[in-house]
Amino acid sequence: MITEERSSSYKLAQRKAPHIDTFVPIQKEKLGENKILVIAGPCSVESKQQIKEIAHAVKEAGAVALRGGAFKPRTSPYSFQGFGAKALEWMAQAREETGLAIVSEIMDPNLVPMFDDYVDVLQIGSRNMQNFHLLKAVAQSKNPILLKRGMGNTLEEYLLAAEYLLLEGNTKVILCERGIRTFERHTRNTFDINAIPALKAQSHLPVLADPSHGTGKWQYVEAIARGAIAAGADGLLVEVHSDPDKALSDGEQSLTIPRFCSLMKQVKKIAKAVDRSV
Amino acid sequence: MITEERSSSYKLAQRKAPHIDTFVPIQKEKLGENKILVIAGPCSVESKQQIKEIAHAVKEAGAVALRGGAFKPRTSPYSFQGFGAKALEWMAQAREETGLAIVSEIMDPNLVPMFDDYVDVLQIGSRNMQNFHLLKAVAQSKNPILLKRGMGNTLEEYLLAAEYLLLEGNTKVILCERGIRTFERHTRNTFDINAIPALKAQSHLPVLADPSHGTGKWQYVEAIARGAIAAGADGLLVEVHSDPDKALSDGEQSLTIPRFCSLMKQVKKIAKAVDRSV
Amino acid sequence: MITEERSSSYKLAQRKAPHIDTFVPIQKEKLGENKILVIAGPCSVESKQQIKEIAHAVKEAGAVALRGGAFKPRTSPYSFQGFGAKALEWMAQAREETGLAIVSEIMDPNLVPMFDDYVDVLQIGSRNMQNFHLLKAVAQSKNPILLKRGMGNTLEEYLLAAEYLLLEGNTKVILCERGIRTFERHTRNTFDINAIPALKAQSHLPVLADPSHGTGKWQYVEAIARGAIAAGADGLLVEVHSDPDKALSDGEQSLTIPRFCSLMKQVKKIAKAVDRSV
Amino acid sequence: MITEERSSSYKLAQRKAPHIDTFVPIQKEKLGENKILVIAGPCSVESKQQIKEIAHAVKEAGAVALRGGAFKPRTSPYSFQGFGAKALEWMAQAREETGLAIVSEIMDPNLVPMFDDYVDVLQIGSRNMQNFHLLKAVAQSKNPILLKRGMGNTLEEYLLAAEYLLLEGNTKVILCERGIRTFERHTRNTFDINAIPALKAQSHLPVLADPSHGTGKWQYVEAIARGAIAAGADGLLVEVHSDPDKALSDGEQSLTIPRFCSLMKQVKKIAKAVDRSV
Repeated sequence: MITEERSSSYKLAQRKAPHIDTFVPIQKEKLGENKILVIAGPCSVESKQQIKEIAHAVKEAGAVALRGGAFKPRTSPYSFQGFGAKALEWMAQAREETGLAIVSEIMDPNLVPMFDDYVDVLQIGSRNMQNFHLLKAVAQSKNPILLKRGMGNTLEEYLLAAEYLLLEGNTKVILCERGIRTFERHTRNTFDINAIPALKAQSHLPVLADPSHGTGKWQYVEAIARGAIAAGADGLLVEVHSDPDKALSDGEQSLTIPRFCSLMKQVKKIAKAVDRSV
Repeated sequence: MITEERSSSYKLAQRKAPHIDTFVPIQKEKLGENKILVIAGPCSVESKQQIKEIAHAVKEAGAVALRGGAFKPRTSPYSFQGFGAKALEWMAQAREETGLAIVSEIMDPNLVPMFDDYVDVLQIGSRNMQNFHLLKAVAQSKNPILLKRGMGNTLEEYLLAAEYLLLEGNTKVILCERGIRTFERHTRNTFDINAIPALKAQSHLPVLADPSHGTGKWQYVEAIARGAIAAGADGLLVEVHSDPDKALSDGEQSLTIPRFCSLMKQVKKIAKAVDRSV
Repeated sequence: MITEERSSSYKLAQRKAPHIDTFVPIQKEKLGENKILVIAGPCSVESKQQIKEIAHAVKEAGAVALRGGAFKPRTSPYSFQGFGAKALEWMAQAREETGLAIVSEIMDPNLVPMFDDYVDVLQIGSRNMQNFHLLKAVAQSKNPILLKRGMGNTLEEYLLAAEYLLLEGNTKVILCERGIRTFERHTRNTFDINAIPALKAQSHLPVLADPSHGTGKWQYVEAIARGAIAAGADGLLVEVHSDPDKALSDGEQSLTIPRFCSLMKQVKKIAKAVDRSV
Repeated sequence: MITEERSSSYKLAQRKAPHIDTFVPIQKEKLGENKILVIAGPCSVESKQQIKEIAHAVKEAGAVALRGGAFKPRTSPYSFQGFGAKALEWMAQAREETGLAIVSEIMDPNLVPMFDDYVDVLQIGSRNMQNFHLLKAVAQSKNPILLKRGMGNTLEEYLLAAEYLLLEGNTKVILCERGIRTFERHTRNTFDINAIPALKAQSHLPVLADPSHGTGKWQYVEAIARGAIAAGADGLLVEVHSDPDKALSDGEQSLTIPRFCSLMKQVKKIAKAVDRSV
């Protein structure tokens, strides 16, 4: 990529050969292998009851992991900031009942041990992609790390951020395209579908797509989910809520449970068309 | 869309009901119906021999129309500017032999009659999307008009540009997402896949995808073509060249003929997965 | 600039030596010389009375030219499109009374002779910066050409567009930074002040600044006008209206006459600080 | 601003009245008052000798504070990461000798006490503008906080990030425009000069300009520094190096000492033109 001299900069993230890919374990599955993996759940964990209900529903529809925000990075300090440790506990209980892996975002570098107790995949959010102090701390986790692309960052910067994790010795790194900042105002972000073949060509790491943040409108999530899988994504990260109108955050881009079921059916067809399973 | 008061501004382009779509005739087919239509050919028409050879090849692979530049909008005045009227003639001859419809870009508002003699679809390029004088002139054609999205224009501005054509009485308008300008430098443009469901939701007009300009790299064209069809595009506009390394323009983003054949096979599978044919 | 091989592409627009600049005559002044020139007037010419009133006011405040839209490039076909030839006549009458040069935008390549009859500087608008057919036609004018930067175009593309004009033999080319498209939503455009030293370093052509379009808010116009002159701009293009609240277009970014007088006073101070006059 | 309901979100950062501004103490001066304050120094502190030499030079030229990177946020993990605590010590020694205030970037929330021992202003860098965990930790400092705008963040998000600091009780917050990400490739970033009047209009906090990152090219730094002061900035943050060609980082955008002296002279003239001193 990008420029020859620089690509040596991400020598650990860089693809070495056409078919040598890294697979990242998520429960009994491996992300990056033939099977498309879907991670779903609410933007924020809002109650024990809410997260259980959604967990059972997405499990039934075919998800392998449950996402849910416990510590929320909110643009305004007056917005709901998440239920914190309590929310992590509720998610761990949902795992007990459903067998879903748990994915949640970490913002405080001192909380890695707590996250390791409760979650299966530690997420580093878009706003922290170049928070190098956090990257180094989270890399100490024994668990896989889902590193989201910064909304204002190039692909080269993205792979160099992944390199920070790999260099610390954590090789279970998951990439995730979630939309970038552009002049277009009809959608919340512009989902950069080019990033999918580009990241797969430049790197051996598995690539997820987040059509919820990528569009900001639930009406477009299904179409972009289909497009991302067709373009080569290894999985999806989707916001699902049992009652989006009452969601404490991101209701506009959350799918209802029936809509998520519909998405799963369509994704299965696309997966088959590119010789993959769901 | 976009804002309620303004959406009334494109009252002709605006979708009125969920399943009332406009179909635009291209040869014996109708763009916007179930069948995915593919338009393919070189960036520039370079010789009678070249355009014939490519025409036969893309026809055989399943294309319904031949694209080729006769008058080229080049960033530099010192770059090759196209073979002009002669190139239009060569394309018309290729139509005789293959039955493919001919698509070519018009820049001079005075040339509408000449284009009507030779081509089947008049293309308005990205740089001229808001060239309102040209829009009004080209709308006088009896033929369909392929209006490409401006690389620096919002979807709202795009539909308002289409409105200029519709208001002049030409109802055979084709939209085409071809990538927008962003901070990302690894790809030539950022293909805005969100535009596909957004345009289909806001308007009844058919929507093409141009993965060649959308990425600027032939290596990513096939992935983005699959993604665009999966997301709901009605067809593709693809640059194909018999010898991209020697192309007079855009060689880096042109598919060879074998690669175009491979793309067609994959697009067929995706089309089937979304209940469409090719 | 930009890359060495490409800079040869704009060999006519390119700076050859540190102090060899092109001066473009506007009435008795020369744009690019020591004196800062200010062009002011309404977005749209709305009546004979309106344009005369504004002409006298901006003349008195120190402007050397009157800008006014006769043929308006409007995003929506339903917006006011300008009073056309009649507006050009009204402006020519305002010139008789005030001695101001007249600047107006041309969109139709066939109207060059008519514009040459009425105006002193032909403007090519932002949306037409890469309308190469128009560039070639307007270059045939005997008058200076004010070429605005495209809102989605790079500086390299901008200088190559200027090269089209120079190559046709019209050497009286004026550049004008007017803001670009970015993710920022608080202002209508992002005024790219970097463009001022960059264009002066790369090219010998004079450079104007348009703080009205560059911000979209009259509240910020004065500050950006000061900044542009301090950064090296040779002049300003400013929207002034006698009653912005009733303007047929762009009222939000138009200065009242008293505010324009205040701007002129401040610009004089800045001009002096950079060893220039107004 | 921005939208009425949201502006209430930054109720602490929000301007309450036209002339009620916050002044932030830096040594014996107050940023935001009439006098323009200049903070200058190298991107990275490279040795005791280097930082002393630059400190004396910028002091003599009129700077009130010394900037220098001790802990560097580098895109690549293989790039020079700064000399850490040792560099902070060297800067504190330079303060002893020159009386300059010390400004340095903090990335690790646990290092606030160490920074408080050595520096006078804690800088939060562009990449960490929405690192809310860091914001909350740094707000505990007794010192002023220089919060740089994120390169991909809107002005609204910027003021909401400042709100995080204010809400924790640290009222000595300094804003700094340093360029945003756009499609333009000739400059490293696009310096958003509109941000200066916009931030002054929306907020009572003082506003710095960083023309070094804003352009990425030392050739344009002086022009943008003049422009920023003319547009209303309260001060400058400028990269200065005694030998930019050998700088360990950002050499391309660093001024030599003689060029910094020239900049100071010009800034004085502009300051006077806007009725301020330096």
